[in-house]
Amino acid sequence: MAQGGGGRTKVHVFRPVEPGDLALIRRHRMEMFRASGRDEAVLAQMDEPFGAWLAPRLASGDYFGWVGMTPSGEAIAGLGMMVIDWPPHPSHPTQSARGYILNVFVEPEHRGRGLARALMDLAMEEARRRGLDHLILHATPMGRPLYEALGWTQTSEMGLSLRVGG
Amino acid sequence: MAQGGGGRTKVHVFRPVEPGDLALIRRHRMEMFRASGRDEAVLAQMDEPFGAWLAPRLASGDYFGWVGMTPSGEAIAGLGMMVIDWPPHPSHPTQSARGYILNVFVEPEHRGRGLARALMDLAMEEARRRGLDHLILHATPMGRPLYEALGWTQTSEMGLSLRVGG
Repeated sequence: MAQGGGGRTKVHVFRPVEPGDLALIRRHRMEMFRASGRDEAVLAQMDEPFGAWLAPRLASGDYFGWVGMTPSGEAIAGLGMMVIDWPPHPSHPTQSARGYILNVFVEPEHRGRGLARALMDLAMEEARRRGLDHLILHATPMGRPLYEALGWTQTSEMGLSLRVGG
Repeated sequence: MAQGGGGRTKVHVFRPVEPGDLALIRRHRMEMFRASGRDEAVLAQMDEPFGAWLAPRLASGDYFGWVGMTPSGEAIAGLGMMVIDWPPHPSHPTQSARGYILNVFVEPEHRGRGLARALMDLAMEEARRRGLDHLILHATPMGRPLYEALGWTQTSEMGLSLRVGG
């Protein structure tokens, strides 16, 4: 069921992320932002602090998710997830939390085979299992069509940079 | 400086939120969502859980912000703020936090006098004082033009409701 669509997709295997996936998830995050055109110098600044942020959360299970693999066990895709504290809101009026999906990545040569879809299905299934009323993510241009096909819609979030020189 | 634009705006007074503002902030959140067309039944569900969520955070200072008042001390506007845990990101590559602005509200009969602008100026000034690189908010249709005028831009956030019947 978790394997998603038809054809070659069926051969993929999915397992939960583990503390030993720290370097893999760091790489996925870098490659994801790189593919969306982010500045290399900024990504280089981000990588180490992201690893420091991730390590304890991966160890505690506060950061969870799945790795997609070939039958021979090569990691070729990943998705991360967190349950974040959030004030009760019309989208989740009795819950002070929302699910957040991040670091969705598929190796370029394995794209178009349903891996991202299968990872999203796992995440949404896990969110339902945890009883979460509302999920959010930030879409790269590459990911947006899939999320729209799965029923996700644009929110009203706005951002402001205060970085000096940023 | 905090009073914003010209004219009648100058008579307004701003003070930090206090634990005693719990009921005021609850009302501001309700009225803000009501004005943006949210369902009354859902807002009724949200109000009490939001109060329960807010009370300890207001007491600890994790939720902070300002109240705008008439010279006679009547509270007529408010804005809340939090520093939320967030993975280092290209918008804040060396910080594992971002500022979040919420519950921006001005009483209907006091709109158009620069109160929201003055509250946003206070929030952005405080964010700079704390050294935050990046801020986010969710804009109501009423608030969006002001945020755009202050340099805020739409993000790529998407959401999905898993609420049964929601």
